[in-house]
Amino acid sequence: MELDDTLVALADETRRSILKRLSNGDARVTELAAPFDISLNSVSKHIRILERAGLVRRRIAGRDHFLSLDPAPLDAAAAWLQRERAAWETRLDKLEAALRAEDAIDKARTRSRRKP
Amino acid sequence: MELDDTLVALADETRRSILKRLSNGDARVTELAAPFDISLNSVSKHIRILERAGLVRRRIAGRDHFLSLDPAPLDAAAAWLQRERAAWETRLDKLEAALRAEDAIDKARTRSRRKP
Repeated sequence: MELDDTLVALADETRRSILKRLSNGDARVTELAAPFDISLNSVSKHIRILERAGLVRRRIAGRDHFLSLDPAPLDAAAAWLQRERAAWETRLDKLEAALRAEDAIDKARTRSRRKP
Repeated sequence: MELDDTLVALADETRRSILKRLSNGDARVTELAAPFDISLNSVSKHIRILERAGLVRRRIAGRDHFLSLDPAPLDAAAAWLQRERAAWETRLDKLEAALRAEDAIDKARTRSRRKP
């Protein structure tokens, strides 16, 4: 599922740093790897995860691989989160109202039983 | 990092279904497992991932474990996504403007060179 790929891709600090770097402009793999204290191979794996999620695009020019940012999947994930949050809120509010109503009925019953 | 835990927890359809079910009210582990064609053990693992992310809380009453939804980490993740999205947008817009300006300068130069 696309949403899964996006969320997994975003769930890592190194990958979020790569995306932030790309938001300042296209970059080669070696340029992206420079600030990290990890192997070029590890950085390549992170980039592949970002590509699979559609967050990063690759343009090949001769020997150079230029990477660029595509924020579209982020929009989809943000929209999903907001929709889900709103739906949960509504259901939790209804649930709370139902529990309060039940509680009020119980209290009213207890009071009426106590009456002489 | 908390954001990592939240995003990983949300990046799975079974776990998203569990959260949706809990937004309709608290449930026991066995009740949560019922609609899924996977072992109780697998469901328990999913629940632990959701608990680690703070999206699910557990209340133990005798032998019963009641699970409830806590939407707070979802808010934090949604806020992060929106903030990041806005920042990328701004940087990408500036980048595009800079590239267009450069392009316009190049064209102007070419035109002035062509002049007799």
